[in-house]
Amino acid sequence: MQLTDLRTFLTAQEVDGLYFIKTDPHFTENLPEYEEFLKYITGFTGSAGLIIVTLQRAALFVDGRYTVQAPMEVNTKIWDIVPWEATKVEAWCKEHTQYLTIGYDPLRLTIETLEKASQYINLAPLPVSPLSMWHNRPSIVPNPISTHDIEYSGAKISDKFKQIITILKSNNAEVLLCTQLDNLAWCMNLRGSDIPYCPLFYGAALIDIHGNATLYTQAFISDDLPLNIKIEPYEKLTEDLAQLHSKYKSILVDKIKTNAAWVCVLQNTKIEILWEVDPITALKAIKNEVELEGMRRAHAKDAIAFKAFNAWFNENAPKGNLTELDIVEVLTALRKEAGAVQLSFPIIAGAGANGAIVHYHATPKTNAKLEVGSLLLLDSGAQYLEATTDITRTYAIGKPSAQMIFHNTLVLKAHIQLTLAKFPVGTTGVQLDSITRAPLWANGLDYAHGTGHGVGSYLCVHEGPASISKRGKIAVEAGMVLTNEPGLYIEGQYGIRIENMMAVRKCAAHPEMLELETLTQVPYDTSLIDFTLLTSDECKWVASYLGI
Amino acid sequence: MQLTDLRTFLTAQEVDGLYFIKTDPHFTENLPEYEEFLKYITGFTGSAGLIIVTLQRAALFVDGRYTVQAPMEVNTKIWDIVPWEATKVEAWCKEHTQYLTIGYDPLRLTIETLEKASQYINLAPLPVSPLSMWHNRPSIVPNPISTHDIEYSGAKISDKFKQIITILKSNNAEVLLCTQLDNLAWCMNLRGSDIPYCPLFYGAALIDIHGNATLYTQAFISDDLPLNIKIEPYEKLTEDLAQLHSKYKSILVDKIKTNAAWVCVLQNTKIEILWEVDPITALKAIKNEVELEGMRRAHAKDAIAFKAFNAWFNENAPKGNLTELDIVEVLTALRKEAGAVQLSFPIIAGAGANGAIVHYHATPKTNAKLEVGSLLLLDSGAQYLEATTDITRTYAIGKPSAQMIFHNTLVLKAHIQLTLAKFPVGTTGVQLDSITRAPLWANGLDYAHGTGHGVGSYLCVHEGPASISKRGKIAVEAGMVLTNEPGLYIEGQYGIRIENMMAVRKCAAHPEMLELETLTQVPYDTSLIDFTLLTSDECKWVASYLGI
Repeated sequence: MQLTDLRTFLTAQEVDGLYFIKTDPHFTENLPEYEEFLKYITGFTGSAGLIIVTLQRAALFVDGRYTVQAPMEVNTKIWDIVPWEATKVEAWCKEHTQYLTIGYDPLRLTIETLEKASQYINLAPLPVSPLSMWHNRPSIVPNPISTHDIEYSGAKISDKFKQIITILKSNNAEVLLCTQLDNLAWCMNLRGSDIPYCPLFYGAALIDIHGNATLYTQAFISDDLPLNIKIEPYEKLTEDLAQLHSKYKSILVDKIKTNAAWVCVLQNTKIEILWEVDPITALKAIKNEVELEGMRRAHAKDAIAFKAFNAWFNENAPKGNLTELDIVEVLTALRKEAGAVQLSFPIIAGAGANGAIVHYHATPKTNAKLEVGSLLLLDSGAQYLEATTDITRTYAIGKPSAQMIFHNTLVLKAHIQLTLAKFPVGTTGVQLDSITRAPLWANGLDYAHGTGHGVGSYLCVHEGPASISKRGKIAVEAGMVLTNEPGLYIEGQYGIRIENMMAVRKCAAHPEMLELETLTQVPYDTSLIDFTLLTSDECKWVASYLGI
Repeated sequence: MQLTDLRTFLTAQEVDGLYFIKTDPHFTENLPEYEEFLKYITGFTGSAGLIIVTLQRAALFVDGRYTVQAPMEVNTKIWDIVPWEATKVEAWCKEHTQYLTIGYDPLRLTIETLEKASQYINLAPLPVSPLSMWHNRPSIVPNPISTHDIEYSGAKISDKFKQIITILKSNNAEVLLCTQLDNLAWCMNLRGSDIPYCPLFYGAALIDIHGNATLYTQAFISDDLPLNIKIEPYEKLTEDLAQLHSKYKSILVDKIKTNAAWVCVLQNTKIEILWEVDPITALKAIKNEVELEGMRRAHAKDAIAFKAFNAWFNENAPKGNLTELDIVEVLTALRKEAGAVQLSFPIIAGAGANGAIVHYHATPKTNAKLEVGSLLLLDSGAQYLEATTDITRTYAIGKPSAQMIFHNTLVLKAHIQLTLAKFPVGTTGVQLDSITRAPLWANGLDYAHGTGHGVGSYLCVHEGPASISKRGKIAVEAGMVLTNEPGLYIEGQYGIRIENMMAVRKCAAHPEMLELETLTQVPYDTSLIDFTLLTSDECKWVASYLGI
């Protein structure tokens, strides 16, 4: 039905098909309901996907996390479900889109993806967004925006602008197009509630080297902004971009974060486009003293929630009657009691074999019982005004097996390896990643995800540019806040992950080195630790962390 | 005098200057005397350098190893000595070569360096090599070439060609231009003696996808080559390259290893040039079973030499009368007795503070006494028909200080960390590098060189493509042979380095993982080890290695 309507729409637009990646005009990780177009068309609820539709065929491309889930949610009689790999997408296109003109929504595709896909598909921008054919699309009600107080942000807008201007000048750029929602919120000291789990608002900004800025947004701003920030309706951005060349010679644009619609407007003018990562991405990652203190306070609140949770869990779990959704419900309520504005992502409570599914989320359909003798993997986080949190603990229900204890202790060793690491200024994420994995590797074990990601200050729970992973090419710098989350997943049996958040700081004893301050203050399940497998330094650290 | 003659030559060639990097037409690490043109012109004996000469000015650019040595060897009244950094070279050129045409020797510059340098200097190829103005240049006597027997190489030329052809075909190349001397020697199962410390011969080859090859060399070949290999004079290569397009559509050329003269000949024809790393570089790095067994036998011979050396050293060193050159003399003689054809590089025997100079070589002028209470860093290697070796040991003369023992034990911990590492297939050098450094980092210490490099099979002691270093992006694969050489350098006091060679192999216990087999069998100086600082696994390994 939706597919038939979509094809009618495409024919009216005089194209032969549609290329659409699940996203919004800002490439936000979590989407509000009114941007869930891919779910509307296909029924697929996963967090990432690509559809390519022609008048004859329709394909949904999903990554490894969703190869089981997608066919259960989607009508496979009309949709091909294909692994989302470059070669597979290309092969499907060669077979089904040759000689066709495939439309795309230029507001919802980066210029970088467009350039890559154009190597094997003939793509044409749709003059009208395909979202316009969405019957009963949830209405877009812009939520109010309010100031993020200096007691939380720790820096005035004017000081942030000064840092941005310095980088713009060093890049010979006269103005910045800021489209990434967390960068926008950070530099304007504003927060909103358009996006689930993140206090962001839809908007964009132009910031120039004279310190003048225009904020484009539909929302009502409850507080006064400084005089140098003009507010304009969101829709006026396109119009202004077209005229920008009359005021500026060059503009800095982030190629992997800016949609093709806005880039094309700029490309049709004389302005020089400088393709660089938005300088705010790097500035925002270095937390100031107020933000770091906020991190510590937020983690103290998390610790209160977990103290209550652990007491409840220890009393009730051994009876063997709890379910994953009970865990979600109780922990959500306790986080709110501790002062959280909201969760920072949907809680992952994976009982038994569900714990081995890395991005599992319990639903009433999958909701599993916490059986005695099994493990619970519990990954959760919250948004406090002071900071965003992210923590994972693994719990034994009843008496754990020897293998569970051995595996959990190895993961803990990896976790401590990183916790205690000291490293020279300039060390990159990939270097810290391998130090973390070494104890697991030594036992022939590994995990198929990164070791750590950046976390925002009352912003997104996943924040760039640094990451502790095999692809982590960025240097880890003092002031960054990152997670430390090695894991181990035994398919069909259980998942183990231990995650703390850490702040990078100068090493007290060795001024040329960096070290990590652990922010999270929640005990580990000691029934899952074999202390005889820990070195004396590791034992000492665990004892001091647990206060024993 | 030489500089005046050079300027006369340049004027006759109608250029305003010369850009010359110390090298030969094959970019070999060690040069024969008749290629030591930079030394002839400047007097500088270091292993790397760049000169830029105009009619008014002359500059010698040297890297950090030579900033002290260069001014002592070179007449600083006529030569500017400048740190060899891209920005400094560019700045010097902006000041002194603007509006000038600077000549270069196209046989002794890669096309890649030429392209980079051309961004800030106006470079023109010299029709006559500047080496032609070298009075009394040592004569070029091509040394004979002989077969490297199958009992050492472990693979027939035809089998090596098959591997090469497969890669050429996958790159859509019809022919390969092989110019790297160790790659040439490897694929032809030939060895020579044109180059100091490496059994290489000057030459180049064209190898096509039908298995036909032409070897261009001046030397006499004492053995019969297979019929599909034609031998032509070295000088005929240029002529043949110019005609190649009549037989082939495409040629694979290694951009960073091929000189501009040969590339320009190709670029003036219709042949398509495919810029790829010479496929032999990767093939040669994976040693076969015969080569690995040869490695073990070569290290057994090294162990015999060191057993005798250690006995002599332990008897004589404590008296405090030995010098660095005594060490070099005795160890060289013992290596020859053990069956070495020659050394694989000049022995580094650094007594006391000299040990802290990473690329130190004792000369009669610098020759230091091995004082009681000091350390000796001894880095050496040999060429055996079975394999090339490289080993470093650090010795205490008399009773070492507590700090020496602490530092040596930390370096040993780093060394063992790598020795015992297990890691998944696909792990790169940078990942192993950080695992090695972690114990030093934990103490605020580090070393400013790589952790390990590839080693050839009776070829070069430094061999690509993998390296265990901060820049090691290549995956470490089963069959590779690499060094494991962490160190620590206390300026003005001593240097410590512990180096073994290791072969990468599949992990017996975990088929998806790799591990390292230690090849070197020479004891460590136990007076420099604090066993209480080692973990029980580390102790166990050292005890088993030392047979105690």
